[in-house]
Amino acid sequence: MTMTDNNTKNYRIIFEGLLPEERLHFDEEALTNHSVDETEGLSFMPGVVAEPISVDEVSNLLKAANDNKIPVTAAGARTGLSGGALPVHGGLALSMRKMNKIIEIDEKNHQAIIEPGVITEVLQNTVESKNLFYAVDPASKGSCTLGGNLAENSGGPRAVKYGVTKDWVLNLQVVLADGQIIETGANTLKNSTGYNLTGLMVGSEGTLGIITRATLKLLPLPRFRALMWVPFKSISDACKTVSEIFHAGVMPSALELMERDALLMAQDFTGNYELQLDPQNEAYLLIEVDGFEEASLMPQCERVMPVLERNNAGEVLFAQTASEQEKLWYLRRRIGEAVKAVSIYKEEDTVVPRGCLPELLDSIKRIGEEYGFRTICYGHAGDGNLHVNILKDEMSEEVWAEQIPEAIREIFKKVVQLGGTLSGEHGIGYVQKNYMDIAISHHNLLIQRGIKKVMDPNGILNPGKMFPQLPHETM
Amino acid sequence: MTMTDNNTKNYRIIFEGLLPEERLHFDEEALTNHSVDETEGLSFMPGVVAEPISVDEVSNLLKAANDNKIPVTAAGARTGLSGGALPVHGGLALSMRKMNKIIEIDEKNHQAIIEPGVITEVLQNTVESKNLFYAVDPASKGSCTLGGNLAENSGGPRAVKYGVTKDWVLNLQVVLADGQIIETGANTLKNSTGYNLTGLMVGSEGTLGIITRATLKLLPLPRFRALMWVPFKSISDACKTVSEIFHAGVMPSALELMERDALLMAQDFTGNYELQLDPQNEAYLLIEVDGFEEASLMPQCERVMPVLERNNAGEVLFAQTASEQEKLWYLRRRIGEAVKAVSIYKEEDTVVPRGCLPELLDSIKRIGEEYGFRTICYGHAGDGNLHVNILKDEMSEEVWAEQIPEAIREIFKKVVQLGGTLSGEHGIGYVQKNYMDIAISHHNLLIQRGIKKVMDPNGILNPGKMFPQLPHETM
Repeated sequence: MTMTDNNTKNYRIIFEGLLPEERLHFDEEALTNHSVDETEGLSFMPGVVAEPISVDEVSNLLKAANDNKIPVTAAGARTGLSGGALPVHGGLALSMRKMNKIIEIDEKNHQAIIEPGVITEVLQNTVESKNLFYAVDPASKGSCTLGGNLAENSGGPRAVKYGVTKDWVLNLQVVLADGQIIETGANTLKNSTGYNLTGLMVGSEGTLGIITRATLKLLPLPRFRALMWVPFKSISDACKTVSEIFHAGVMPSALELMERDALLMAQDFTGNYELQLDPQNEAYLLIEVDGFEEASLMPQCERVMPVLERNNAGEVLFAQTASEQEKLWYLRRRIGEAVKAVSIYKEEDTVVPRGCLPELLDSIKRIGEEYGFRTICYGHAGDGNLHVNILKDEMSEEVWAEQIPEAIREIFKKVVQLGGTLSGEHGIGYVQKNYMDIAISHHNLLIQRGIKKVMDPNGILNPGKMFPQLPHETM
Repeated sequence: MTMTDNNTKNYRIIFEGLLPEERLHFDEEALTNHSVDETEGLSFMPGVVAEPISVDEVSNLLKAANDNKIPVTAAGARTGLSGGALPVHGGLALSMRKMNKIIEIDEKNHQAIIEPGVITEVLQNTVESKNLFYAVDPASKGSCTLGGNLAENSGGPRAVKYGVTKDWVLNLQVVLADGQIIETGANTLKNSTGYNLTGLMVGSEGTLGIITRATLKLLPLPRFRALMWVPFKSISDACKTVSEIFHAGVMPSALELMERDALLMAQDFTGNYELQLDPQNEAYLLIEVDGFEEASLMPQCERVMPVLERNNAGEVLFAQTASEQEKLWYLRRRIGEAVKAVSIYKEEDTVVPRGCLPELLDSIKRIGEEYGFRTICYGHAGDGNLHVNILKDEMSEEVWAEQIPEAIREIFKKVVQLGGTLSGEHGIGYVQKNYMDIAISHHNLLIQRGIKKVMDPNGILNPGKMFPQLPHETM
C-alpha cells in the first residue's frame, strides 16, 4: 500500500452517493481534524472523512474503498496514544462516532449490545443505573469510545481484578475489507465453536475489519469501595509490596504506582496542592478494594496492612466515601496531561510480570542516565503495566530524533528479557511498529501477516500500522 | 487431505530415528489405543503413534510429517467428547502425554509454566499447596490433560465465576505445521502487541499448531466454600432462579442444573441412594459460593435465599464442610458415566444466554417427543451451557442413524435462534462439524478456512475436524 495522493476528485466520484452529503466531508477543517489523535507530534491528512450511521453504510464504503484500493482508517474519539487512528497513507478516515447507540441492555442475561461510537463512560453510567457493571475504565473513559477500546484492547486501573477489553466481549459484528458482514461469535458466556475470531478482532487495531456492533458482558455492580493511599520512601519497596498483596489473598480492584515526580507534576498542572507529598517519599501506591457489601471491605484492608508494614510503608490514608476517594484519584488521573504540559515526550506502555517491576524501573532509570533524559513512570503496577514517559526537556532535536529510538529499543529489550512485551493496553499502532521485532519473532510475524492477508487481501485497512516497516515500504 | 492408507512401511522410513524406538509405536495395541477417545461409537486407526518428550522432538516430527503430507492428530488423555483426538485420516497420532512437566510455579507473579501433558487436577493440587488457584475444572479433571483443555477451550462448573481455559492463558509455545517454533504472546497479564495468537490457538482443536508449553495465570486461593442443594417442583422455576441469582448481586462459583432423571440415573449407576429425591421435584440446582474468608460466605447465601423463595424452591440443603460438599457434588459428577451405562447416546454441548434456558429446555423436550427419544439434560446453568444427552434406548439403528441428525439440527437451530451456539466447552471436533453451517456464516467460515491455510498450508494438522465436510471431500 503506497497510495497517499489523496486524489479528492477521484474520491468524490467513488464515495459520493454512498452517504448523505452532510456526513461525507472533503473540506479542509474536517480533514485536518481527522489528521491527528492524542499521540504527540504526528499528523497525516486523509482525503475524505465519512461518518456512517449503519452497518450497511460501512459495508458500502468498504466495498468501494476495496474495489479502488483506497486506504481506510477507522477512528473513534481519537484519544489513542499509539497513533492507531492516524491515516498515515491518507485515503478514507472512517469516523465511527455517529454509530453511538446503546442498542440493548439485556438485564436478564447481563449483556449490553452497543455500537462502537458509544463513549465508554456513557455505557458505564447507563448500566450502573441498572445495578450492573462494565469494568473496563481507561484513563480517557469520559471521552474515548468503546470501538477504540475494542481496537486497542484497552485496559485501565480495574484491569488488575477485572481484565482488559477482550475479557468483556462475547460477540462482534464486523465488516470485512470487501464489505461482507460477519458475526464473530455468539451472545454466550462460553463458546468452543470454531476459531475465536472475536478474540482475534479485539486488539487488531482496525487492520482486520471494522467493528460495527459488540455484545459485552456485564457483572452485578460491586457497590462498595475502599481506597488506600500509601507512601514509600523506596520505590523498590513499593514495587515489592505489589506482588505481596496478592499473596495475602487480596484481589485489589486497582493497584496503581506513581513516582513522586509524576505527582508533583500533576499538582503543578492542576494547582491542587491539598495532598502533602513528603520529599522523603519516592513513590506512592493507590490500593482499591471493592465488594457487594460494605462489610466485605475491612477484611480486605486488614489483610493488606501487614504487607504494607513489612515493606516500610509510611502513614496510610484511608478513603471510604466517594468524594474522599475522588480526591485521591484526581491527581493520578491528571498525570498524563501534566506530563504533556511540561515537555515534549514519548510514552511507552511497557508491561512485565508484576514481580519484575523493581528491575524494570532500575533499568529505565539507568538507561535514562546513560542517554541523558528524565523519565516519569506511573501506571497499573498490579498487572505489571508501567507507563514510561521520556521527557525531551532541553535535549536538542537531533539527539531526540536520533538517540532516543535507540534508548527505547534498550528499554524494550529489557522488558522482553523480563518476560514482558511492548504494549499492555495502548496498542502498537504507528509509533511502536518498528520495535515489533524485539518482541515478536520472524515466524510469528509471518503468521500475523498471513492472517492480515486473508482478511484484507488488498491491504486497505489501516495500512502502515502494527507491522514493522519492510525495506521496500515507504513510510 | 485424503491420505488414509497408513502405509506403515513408509512411516517407518519417515519417522524412525526422530524418536528413540521405545517412544515410536507401530504395534497393533498402541495403534488401537489411539484409535478412540471418549466420544461414543467412533474409532479410526492411526498409522504410527509417537510420544515426544521435548519441543525439538515435536518440531522434527511435524517437519517430517509436513514434508511428506502425513496427517498429524495430537492427543492428550483422550477424554474428549467431540472426537477431537481421533485420527480420522490415519497418519501420525501425536501423544503429548509424556510432556507432562510442571516447569515452574512462579509464586511471585502467580503464574504456572506447564507442558501440555500435565493432568489438570495435578496442576490444581500443586498450586493449592502453595495457596494458589487454577480455576478451570472440567468434569474429567482427574484424567484430562491441560493440553486437551487448551485445544478444546474447556470449561467446567467454576467457569461461571472464573471463566474458561482461554481466560487463564497468558502465553503459549507452539510448533507450527512446518516445524517452526513460536511464542504466541508474553508472560504478562495484559498484552496489546500484535494479533492475539494466544486466543486464536486456544480452542483451535489441534488444527493450527501443536501447543508444547503454556504460561497460565493463577489466583490467590479462595479457601472457603459453601454449597446449597435446592429442589424445584418446576424446572422452569429452577431456570428462572439462575438468572435472578446474579441480579441479587451474587457471583456464584458454581451454578449447576440437573433434571431429576439425571440424578436417578446417577443413583442407579453409583448405588448411592443417600440423597432423597422427592418424585415431585423436577429439577435441582447446586449453588456454590466461595471466598477468601469464611465470614464472606453467609452474606452471599443470604442474598440467594429470597431468590429461591420467590421462585418456589423446596427445602434447601446447606453444606459447609468439604465432606458434606463432596457428597452433593458426587452425584452431579457421575451423571455423564451414568448416562453412558444406560443407553447408546449422543451428547450435545448447547450454550445460550442463560435467561433463555427455560425456552431451550421446552424446545428440546418438544423435539424429543416429536422424534420419539428421551433426553437427559444437565449442566452449567450459570453460563447457559446445557449438556443434552439424547438416548437411543429401544430406537432402531435405522431411525437412530437417519432421523436423529435431523433432530439435532432442529435443536441447534433453536439454540442459534436464542443467541447461542453449538458448543460451550467440548469443541466441534468430528461429531459436530457438519452442523457448523447453522451457527457460522459462509463468509465467517471462509475467514476461518483462510487462517487454517496460512498456518497449515498442507492441511496436515488434525484434518477432518471442525470444518463442515465439503462436497468433494471423503469422510
